[in-house]
Order: sequence, then structure tokens, then C-alpha cells
Amino acid sequence: MRPVSEQTRVAVLGAGGRMGAAVCDAVRGAADLELVAALHRTDAVSDAVAAGASVAVDFTVPGVTEANVHALVDAGVHAVVGATGWTGESLDRVREHLDGAPGVSVLVAPNFALGAVLAMSFAAQAARWFESAEVVELHHPDKVDAPSGTARHTAAAIAGARAAAGLGVMPDATASGLEGARGADVDGVRVHSVRLRGLVAHEEILLGNPGEQLTVRHDSFDRTSFMPGVLLAVRQAASRPGLTVGLEHLLGLG
Amino acid sequence: MRPVSEQTRVAVLGAGGRMGAAVCDAVRGAADLELVAALHRTDAVSDAVAAGASVAVDFTVPGVTEANVHALVDAGVHAVVGATGWTGESLDRVREHLDGAPGVSVLVAPNFALGAVLAMSFAAQAARWFESAEVVELHHPDKVDAPSGTARHTAAAIAGARAAAGLGVMPDATASGLEGARGADVDGVRVHSVRLRGLVAHEEILLGNPGEQLTVRHDSFDRTSFMPGVLLAVRQAASRPGLTVGLEHLLGLG
Amino acid sequence: MRPVSEQTRVAVLGAGGRMGAAVCDAVRGAADLELVAALHRTDAVSDAVAAGASVAVDFTVPGVTEANVHALVDAGVHAVVGATGWTGESLDRVREHLDGAPGVSVLVAPNFALGAVLAMSFAAQAARWFESAEVVELHHPDKVDAPSGTARHTAAAIAGARAAAGLGVMPDATASGLEGARGADVDGVRVHSVRLRGLVAHEEILLGNPGEQLTVRHDSFDRTSFMPGVLLAVRQAASRPGLTVGLEHLLGLG
Amino acid sequence: MRPVSEQTRVAVLGAGGRMGAAVCDAVRGAADLELVAALHRTDAVSDAVAAGASVAVDFTVPGVTEANVHALVDAGVHAVVGATGWTGESLDRVREHLDGAPGVSVLVAPNFALGAVLAMSFAAQAARWFESAEVVELHHPDKVDAPSGTARHTAAAIAGARAAAGLGVMPDATASGLEGARGADVDGVRVHSVRLRGLVAHEEILLGNPGEQLTVRHDSFDRTSFMPGVLLAVRQAASRPGLTVGLEHLLGLG
Repeated sequence: MRPVSEQTRVAVLGAGGRMGAAVCDAVRGAADLELVAALHRTDAVSDAVAAGASVAVDFTVPGVTEANVHALVDAGVHAVVGATGWTGESLDRVREHLDGAPGVSVLVAPNFALGAVLAMSFAAQAARWFESAEVVELHHPDKVDAPSGTARHTAAAIAGARAAAGLGVMPDATASGLEGARGADVDGVRVHSVRLRGLVAHEEILLGNPGEQLTVRHDSFDRTSFMPGVLLAVRQAASRPGLTVGLEHLLGLG
Repeated sequence: MRPVSEQTRVAVLGAGGRMGAAVCDAVRGAADLELVAALHRTDAVSDAVAAGASVAVDFTVPGVTEANVHALVDAGVHAVVGATGWTGESLDRVREHLDGAPGVSVLVAPNFALGAVLAMSFAAQAARWFESAEVVELHHPDKVDAPSGTARHTAAAIAGARAAAGLGVMPDATASGLEGARGADVDGVRVHSVRLRGLVAHEEILLGNPGEQLTVRHDSFDRTSFMPGVLLAVRQAASRPGLTVGLEHLLGLG
Repeated sequence: MRPVSEQTRVAVLGAGGRMGAAVCDAVRGAADLELVAALHRTDAVSDAVAAGASVAVDFTVPGVTEANVHALVDAGVHAVVGATGWTGESLDRVREHLDGAPGVSVLVAPNFALGAVLAMSFAAQAARWFESAEVVELHHPDKVDAPSGTARHTAAAIAGARAAAGLGVMPDATASGLEGARGADVDGVRVHSVRLRGLVAHEEILLGNPGEQLTVRHDSFDRTSFMPGVLLAVRQAASRPGLTVGLEHLLGLG
Repeated sequence: MRPVSEQTRVAVLGAGGRMGAAVCDAVRGAADLELVAALHRTDAVSDAVAAGASVAVDFTVPGVTEANVHALVDAGVHAVVGATGWTGESLDRVREHLDGAPGVSVLVAPNFALGAVLAMSFAAQAARWFESAEVVELHHPDKVDAPSGTARHTAAAIAGARAAAGLGVMPDATASGLEGARGADVDGVRVHSVRLRGLVAHEEILLGNPGEQLTVRHDSFDRTSFMPGVLLAVRQAASRPGLTVGLEHLLGLG
């Protein structure tokens, strides 16, 4: 066991939620991290500062998270943020705030599953080399939106890579059939949403050329899959000042 | 090598087409079969009879195949028919004709790939035991219809099995999103069509229950995949008088 | 809601184990079943009888389960048995006992996941139609045996179906390489065991012919996947006197 | 159509082989390339020079290819080399030769399928982030070695990435079972070889973490899959002087 002095002191905001509780467990289970505060929604962010946290993980809710981050930056505490609902404007406000707080870091990530982030990166790296590319996402049937946000981001990344490489429209001779068979159109990339009892969250990217197919698939079986990404962000917080959006920047990918 | 007397004498109608030519090759390569006539579209069916064929394989075209079959039945030659375009009425006419031709057999099959036929049978056998079921079919991008006929048949078979077992509507909480994301609706079963350069013809049936998934997938890489089914039909022709629709009846499935 | 009088009275033996506890939950959640006794290992089987159970589900341990079943048969209570460790001899003893207990039923099943049972049945139905067949099973890395019992049963079923159909050895030109690359040999069928953190229990059966592949895959994500099979066995217990080994006989498969 | 003056003049060595013939077709089909010489094994390399080729594609055989490359370098013709049998020493000799031939390029690639090269790169990028990693390769049953060279390279790349990241041995509690079930061991990475009639060349890389799986799969359906990679190498030949080993360097990957 490492001496206490080497441990990074971590606070968790939104510790009462399912993700927050999982983060608390993960921090407790990591020998190089110490959980110094597990705050619920109604607790003050200053409690994290008072507890001596050097990094705070925020898994609260859209209406609260932005104020939390600004309070943390003011106190010189690095923030790792998993809450959804961030817009370009709210990110701009954090970026500006960080300009006046040298050395402090904020990481905002829509997805902490390493595998999902890698899959999206691989899709973007591969897209320019293939004639065809489609996305199939598969989720439990209680999901209310289709396609998933991850699949839309992936399709948009594929479309961007194709455009940058000067690729045109994908081949598709479909002339007749049933409505919806060819899926949703996201920037010219077809996305198909399967809803199946028993599933959690899965995504498959299919790329095709004459005589070959490349497939990248990510399966999320439960929320423990997010913990390695959260801990990675906590550990890199001190060495990555400023605003970082997306876990992919921590993975040293191409 | 077996003595000639044991070989079944086979004629191929539509031998100039790609499927017909492949059938000729397959018959030539089978020790228990003898190719006695390879007829083109403009040849008379009577040439097959004159050549002493006991079974004729017809891979001609919709406008011609029905007349061919009636001529074969009149001559007492068993028919194995792969041409598309058969309706319920044309099948009824053949069934009636066969009533007056005891011992003669006609098999009409929309698909001769054993794997595809098995996949459809398995989907139908499994469907009543699962809460959710969807179909994903994947083809080359030059295909003009979506979904494929095979996928539509498979979805209809799933829907039929669910109805027979008293299952209701599948769970699906989708409330927002993009048009087409959830695929086409075939009798309440969702069907998704992927079009990808490099592919040939592929179908995946996904079935889900709490905590488990069952997947049946068939890949057709080229038309040689149809030959084992064609030869099976030729070999069983003499022992299966009357009209048979669908290769599944030759496979002894549940 | 059905009247109470129509409910089947169910006892669970081994209710303190993880499977037993899940069965208790599943019975409680079923409108047509009533949980009348949840017995731990040290409780007497007579408590289930005293509670008026008409069906008892036994998820105890190898050393106990056989005596439980004989006590249940003596009392005229149907038994659904999920415990492992049954041999041909212990099954014979139950069969004999049931000869003198008309109307009483015992079902012993090594696997209650409907999807796994269907996958194995489909493998056996399809095997005779393909030149090649192999099995890949994938599990969490804490599993101590390789291959899994399910994969061995599946491979043996494939080998049996091939032998019954007169098929010979599968094609395999492998002449050089690394030891173990071609997997384990189960009656001539190759079985490959993948061990991967994050997985639970998965099996894939691959069948190949010229130009086509048929794949059947089952994924078990957690033990809730066994509950539909257990409830099905409970519901059919009264109508299936005698000994039944294997859930497949309750599914009306070919 | 571009003016002739912009076309790159290409010679093909080994044009009588199946790969060489496919390259000839691919060059003929590319508007920006002109096929100026299609040489058979017995033709002199000087014929390519005499025909004014600026790039030569060599798909000859191990005993011939090295001498071809040196002759091409002497003549100032760029070489794209797909022949196997290159050793570290033969590559060193070419590298030395190129030191004295500024501006001339040689690309030697063991695999020209873009998808296969991408799959291997993705495996190497992802490996350091996962607890478990295994490789499954699937080929037609006429293949004589197991595992495939590509799978061995992929496994070695995974092992290298794990070692560089300081990862230890993968979790595996296997204590009993059948010989070979856990596959071949390549630097601590398990590799499984499936042989199935109907398949061509396929590779699947499986990576696992708690709660998640990442899968990268490449399917080669026929040798047309190598042509985009060959043409890419031809087009980049003039701008990439010196020796390049492996197509991945042309893809701008991480």
C-alpha cells in the first residue's frame, strides 16, 4: 500500500445517483486515490474544497453541473465531468474561466466507456478508406430515443472524415421497398436502431470495400464499464490544464 | 464410381443463365447424377424428355417457367424449380395438374441455400420463446429493393409464430428520434437493411429475453451456396410426389 | 388477475443460494404462481409438502439434490431440478422410482436458458447439412474449466448428428503451426475457449458449406436468463408425468 | 478523363500469377494510371524500364523478388512489393541500396488489404486499455498453417503494446479441461484458428474490460480486397522516398 501522501484526494459530486455511487466505489477500490468527500445534490460544493480534494468528479444533473464546475475552478480544484446537457456556450464559459485559472483543468466527456471512445475513434480513422459505412446500434427496449446519441456522433464523425478526404455519396441503388428499411440518415450515413429485451448498449460500425469488410463493435454490459475511463481522467487531471472535451484526448490516439 | 445404371438422369432448363450454368457444373460434379440435357431458353422442353431425363431443374424466367413445369408434368418428368415469380394461383394450377399425374413431383423453392432455409426455420421455431425479435439483412449496394424478400419472409414467419403463441406487441419505448431509425415494419417485426460494398447476401435474426440474446445469422458468399440445396431436391424428387413449396420440407425440420 | 384458486403452489429448495433466490423472485412476480415455501439447505423437504406445494424447484447442491427429489416423489410433489452433479445412475434411480408414482413428474435440466437450449437444438438440426462445424465459447476469465460443459454437449450433439447422417471427417489441411491453435477435439468437432474480462457466458456455433456460413450464437448476460425456462418447467410439470431430462423436450422442437 | 501526361506509368512484374493479373486489371481500370508493361516471371526487369515505367508492382515469388527490386532501384523505378519471403537481412540490403539512390522508393507490404492493416493498427492502439485480449482467425479448410501469419502478427502487436504500457499477464483461471481449448499462445496472447468450408480469410480481435467488450473484425472475401491498397501504394510511391515496410505508414494512423 502506498503512503497516504502519494494518494490523490478525490471528491464525488452527485454521489447519491447510480453513476456517482459507482464512482465512489471505484475510487475507494483504487490504491492511488482517496475518497475525501461524497456529496449529494443538496450539499455545497465548498464541502469538497474543505475536505481538501484536488480533483472532483461531477455526475450531477444538467441544471447543476455548470455552476459546480465554476465553483471548483474558483477553488483551484480540477473537475472531471460526466453530466450531460453541456452546450457549446456553456463550454465556452468554462474555457474563458480557465484562462484566468492557470494550472486548473476541466474534462467534460459525454462517454467514459473506453471501448466506446476507441470505437468512435477507429470509425473516424477508417472511414476515409472505405466506399461504404453504416452504423447499427442496439439497446434495451426502454430507451426513448432512436438513434442513440453515441451512434449519431459516430455517424457524424464518419461523415466528417469522408468529407475531409473528398469522398462522395455512398453507393446505394435502393429504388423500392418499405419505408424505414434503410434506417435514419445522419449526414449521409445510415444509422439503424435495434431495440431488444436483454440488451444494454451496443454499437457496430460496418465499413465495406470491394471484397472486404471491416467491423468495429462495442458492447456495454453495465455501468462498471465507465469506471476505468473516470479513473483515467482523475489521474491525468493535474497534468492536463485547461478544458478538454472528450476522453479520446487522454488515450493518445491517432 | 457408381455404375451408370444407378445415376439419376437430369436436364437443366435455363442452362445459359448464371444459376443454370452453375447447376450444370454441380450436376456434372456429382457421381450419382448424369447431365443429359442443358437447354437454353429457346430450346423446347420436349428435348429434355427426349434425352431421357427423369428430373428437370428449371432456372428460366417468370414468363416461361410455369409452362415448362406443366409440360414436364405431362411427360412424367419431376421438376425442381428455382425461378421466381410464382403466385398462389400458378401454384394452385400445378397442384391441380399433379392430382392427375400420380407419382410425379414438383418442388418450387424461393431459396436453395440450405443455410438460409435453416435460418428461417430456426427463427420461426425460436420466436414464440422471446419477448423481442428483429431482423437485420445486409447486401451489396447494387440491390434495388429493401428489405430483401428473404428478410420479409423471415419477419412474417416470426410474426406468425408470435401470433400463434398468443404473444402481443414487442416492447419499444421509442418516443423521439430520426425517421427510419427503427427500420421497416413487417407485421410488427422491425427489419433493417444495410447496403455495403463488398457484401453479397447476409441475414441476421436477433431474439431477446431478460438477460439473454439468441442470434441466427446466414452469410451467402456466392451462388455455389445454392448447389447443395438444388442437388438435394433432385435426389429427393422421385420419393416426394405432388407439389412441395419450400426446401424446408426436405430437411426434416421441426 | 386470475383468482387465487388457479395459482400453482410452488416451493423453492435452496432458496438461500443465488439461483434459488432468483427463482423465488421470479415465482413471486408470476400471477399464475404462488410461492408457498422458500427452504434453505438445512430445512426439511417435508416443509415443502406441509406448505401444500404441488411443484418444488430444487437448486441445492450435488450431495443433497438426489435425496430431495426422492422425498418429493414420495410425497407426490412434482420436481423441477437445476442442480448439477446428476449421473446416469442417479437418473436411473429416479426413473425407477417414478414408475411406482404415476402422475408425478421430475424434470432435470443442465441449462434453463431457453436461448442456450434452442442454440444446441439448432446446432444438432443443422449439423448434418454442412461440411464443417466448429464451436467457440466465450466466458469470464474466472471460469476454471475449458471448454464449458455447454460447449462440450453442443459439440457432442453435432458429432452425433453428423455420424447419424453418415458424414465423415471434416476437411482440415492444417499441417504446421502452433500447438492448441485448432482448439480442443470433442468427438472430432473443434471447440475453442475464449476467456475475456467483462463477459459472462456466450456460445457460437459456426457451420460452413461452399459459399455459405450459418452461425447460431447465444449470449447469457446474467442469471435472470434462466427464469423463463424455470417458470416454463413449473407450468408444464403437472402435464408431463415421468422423468424428463433437458428443457428441449418442453419446447416442441424438431 | 485526365490528359495522358498526368497518368503514372506502371509496370506489373509477375503478371501471370493470380495477384499480378488482378493488379493489371486494377491499373487498367484507374483513370490516373497507365499499364505500360505486364511482365511474366521469365521476362527481364529491364523491359519495365524500357517501357518507361515510373512505378513497378512486384507480385513474383520469394526467390526472384529481391533481385527485381535491386534492378528497379538501379534504374530509378519506384517499387511496390507484395511478394512474401522477405527477411530482416533482405530488407537491410534494400535500405542500404536506397541510401545511394535518393528520391527512389520501395514499399514492401505483407498485406495490402486496407481493412486488415487497419484492424491490426486498431488492435495495437486499443490493447493497452484492456485487461484481456484474444484473437480468433477463421479461414477455409485448405489452409496448411494455423494460426495465420496475420493473426500471429496481430497477437505480437497486442503483446508489444501491453508490455510497453506495463500491463501484466491476462487473467485466466483455467485449471482443467481439454488440451488445446485455450488456443495457441503467441507472446502471452491466445490465438484460436477456425477452419470452415466457405470462408476465405477473416480475423477477429476481442478486447475485454469489466462491463464492456471491444471487437475489431476484418473479412476478406476475395483478392479484389487487395487492390485499393496496391493502388494507394502506387500513387504515393513518388512522394515517399526510401524504404517503407507495411501499408500502415501510408494510412496516417496513430
